[in-house]
Amino acid sequence: MKKLTPISGFPEFLPEEQIVIQSVLDTMRAVYEKFGFVPIETPAVERVEHLLEKGLQGKEVYLLRRLQEEEIGPSDLALHFDLTVPLARYVAQHYGKLTFPFKRYQIQPVWRGERPQAGRYRQFYQSDIDVIGDGTLSLIFDAEICAVIDAVFTQMQIGPFSIRLNHRKILQGVLGSVGISEQPLVHQAIKIVDEIEKQPLEKTAEAFERLGLNRKDCSSLLEFFSLSGSPDAVLKRLSSLSISTAFEAGVQDLREVVKGMQMLRVPDERYTIDVKIARGLDYYTGTVYETTLQTHPQLGSICSGGRYDDLTGVFLDRKLPGVGTSIGVTRLIPQLMKEGILKPKGAAIAPILVTMQNPAHLSRYLEIASRLRARGMATEAYLERKSLGAQLRYADKKGFQLVLIADDPEFQQEKVLVKKMQTGEQKEVFLQTLEESISSMLSSK
Amino acid sequence: MKKLTPISGFPEFLPEEQIVIQSVLDTMRAVYEKFGFVPIETPAVERVEHLLEKGLQGKEVYLLRRLQEEEIGPSDLALHFDLTVPLARYVAQHYGKLTFPFKRYQIQPVWRGERPQAGRYRQFYQSDIDVIGDGTLSLIFDAEICAVIDAVFTQMQIGPFSIRLNHRKILQGVLGSVGISEQPLVHQAIKIVDEIEKQPLEKTAEAFERLGLNRKDCSSLLEFFSLSGSPDAVLKRLSSLSISTAFEAGVQDLREVVKGMQMLRVPDERYTIDVKIARGLDYYTGTVYETTLQTHPQLGSICSGGRYDDLTGVFLDRKLPGVGTSIGVTRLIPQLMKEGILKPKGAAIAPILVTMQNPAHLSRYLEIASRLRARGMATEAYLERKSLGAQLRYADKKGFQLVLIADDPEFQQEKVLVKKMQTGEQKEVFLQTLEESISSMLSSK
Repeated sequence: MKKLTPISGFPEFLPEEQIVIQSVLDTMRAVYEKFGFVPIETPAVERVEHLLEKGLQGKEVYLLRRLQEEEIGPSDLALHFDLTVPLARYVAQHYGKLTFPFKRYQIQPVWRGERPQAGRYRQFYQSDIDVIGDGTLSLIFDAEICAVIDAVFTQMQIGPFSIRLNHRKILQGVLGSVGISEQPLVHQAIKIVDEIEKQPLEKTAEAFERLGLNRKDCSSLLEFFSLSGSPDAVLKRLSSLSISTAFEAGVQDLREVVKGMQMLRVPDERYTIDVKIARGLDYYTGTVYETTLQTHPQLGSICSGGRYDDLTGVFLDRKLPGVGTSIGVTRLIPQLMKEGILKPKGAAIAPILVTMQNPAHLSRYLEIASRLRARGMATEAYLERKSLGAQLRYADKKGFQLVLIADDPEFQQEKVLVKKMQTGEQKEVFLQTLEESISSMLSSK
Repeated sequence: MKKLTPISGFPEFLPEEQIVIQSVLDTMRAVYEKFGFVPIETPAVERVEHLLEKGLQGKEVYLLRRLQEEEIGPSDLALHFDLTVPLARYVAQHYGKLTFPFKRYQIQPVWRGERPQAGRYRQFYQSDIDVIGDGTLSLIFDAEICAVIDAVFTQMQIGPFSIRLNHRKILQGVLGSVGISEQPLVHQAIKIVDEIEKQPLEKTAEAFERLGLNRKDCSSLLEFFSLSGSPDAVLKRLSSLSISTAFEAGVQDLREVVKGMQMLRVPDERYTIDVKIARGLDYYTGTVYETTLQTHPQLGSICSGGRYDDLTGVFLDRKLPGVGTSIGVTRLIPQLMKEGILKPKGAAIAPILVTMQNPAHLSRYLEIASRLRARGMATEAYLERKSLGAQLRYADKKGFQLVLIADDPEFQQEKVLVKKMQTGEQKEVFLQTLEESISSMLSSK
């Protein structure tokens, strides 16, 4: 037998971990749907030309090739590397059949042909929401996206977090004010801004100087990027700077977004305006956001997104602005488990196990399990002929909450024993009122 | 602009269809979990050698190749073409960390590099459950799998269906009795049996004759395969035939499975013993089943599976018997929609739409939406400045149930108008008791 080893970059989880992942994805879905986002899925593959058309030639894309055709010609299909290009293609292709504003969520794996290295995934799930407008799109949607992020992370109960907002025009305005207004300079400057938090100040200053800035401009940039305070205070400060019309338009947009977030009752302590937030991706044109866990800033941004003027560009002859955000689920959840913020509760998905102490009573055990299931309680029946001790070890290892045990003496009295696995406590329960008793024991934990 | 066309074999759905698919998958998951099956997922890829090791060289497998490496050497990764090989590899790889009997469900896309043709998918979802034992596995699990199938299709409400059971040893026994006991003859005979229902009797007889059978053996086979009646009657008839020890072992197994199904209260009318059920796949060794919709037999088997003696064969030096079943979701659901058995209800995932009749009241509209969401009611807020007429057309097109409308007159009286979209009926609702009123309107439809 060959030893089986994991395929580097393609993570796989044990059932107890998968249960946690599944429950987080369920939370996300429930929140998305509560705000009216509809589910879509796109195939794992897109045409290679479409993936490359979006100016992403540098991406390491996985091509598909049929085994039987390996030696014939170039492949025309590749696995998608994000859910944004597929969304653009989907919206363009089905434009006439969709209703706008089109709000969709999409939770699927994406693939990147990265060189294998620690912490780099070659397959990972993304959990994306976007709103696409036909021609125009209200800024309140930018606020709603934040309200969704707020609801998701609040429900996940992973501690305090902060949604950090900025606006591309503010960034472009301030860079323009020191003469950085042409590509590739702007692109390089945005990269520096993206790194500010990870660098000592001098490094940032040096990096700006290398772009050709003088000392004075450098220090005015550094001062600008150190702006902090409440959203209202920061907005007030930004309004007082007369940098450019674009800059002021950015500030005005951001004010509207913040007003929307207040109307949507996103708690004040959950968001800030942070002019250092840049988001490397070139297609953002308005609001940008990142979200950080306050107790675990080392995890970096756990949810990022922004607004883009034109989603479908190359695919459709219409302007479809959008705003959205993406959570890198496969990076996030294992990290949260590693940090102990999310804890697997065991490999049992059902809380209840009905043991089979005496195979002669199989029919009664199955009846008990069926009755509990019929009342909505997930129940596993142990069906192998093993000692009760082995069955209890199974229950313990998998993490069941309640274990039902019965043989002749109990059945003669129309009873079963219920063992609470966490405390070891045992209780007798009458079969006549089985469902009510078990249900109340479950809810009392 | 190029015209965007679907990629042949890679189906994609509109939101209203995806909502149906999603809800079916949710039903399946809920049932699987209620019986204690835990979720797992495996990466989309496996090592090519593992896919081919299972004797499936004939499968049209999709290889993966990084774009940047297209010209270098053979690929060692390929997309999985089912969920059984990945399960075998998963169980072998994580053997020491799993608890047996290991009951898992797995709902994921699989890929097959088929030549594009109508009705052939190159990507499709499978929804699989399996129970894997360590050394042994009780026959009651074969019955439990049927109870799960019964629960899934009952909850899907797609009309009467029939689970058709057979046993490989019965099939091998009866074929052996006419001298068909060696490969490749057995394999060819099983193919003929698989086709019996789709052929006139003479064709089947001719096919058997081509295997070298004489008239008499042919007609005794045809007679055998026409056996029908209640499970108990068929079992009785099978017991009366003295064909071989293996045959009798098969009958005995099947009797036990049927007894289990009775204990699990699978209704009698939901299953039959059908000795024509063969299941082409070579790895089945015991119980086999197919499920057909009684009103739509032309859909073929909508759920198939069986028992196999040894799942992990090439991967692990231990005998792990299993039993499971698979639903080809991507084939099934679109067919059920096409036949009108499942009907999309619209592209609204939230039942409630709060319109924005007057942007000056945006804050109140958002508050109303937030209050409803806080009480668990999925609610979309319309946020574009459009006429009320346009907003109602949006609501109608997407299929919302209730639409909330309010402007100065209503707000002055602390009221909103609620329009039931299906009947057109309007009702005034006081804001003070908003949640209760809307909730009762939703449940009364």
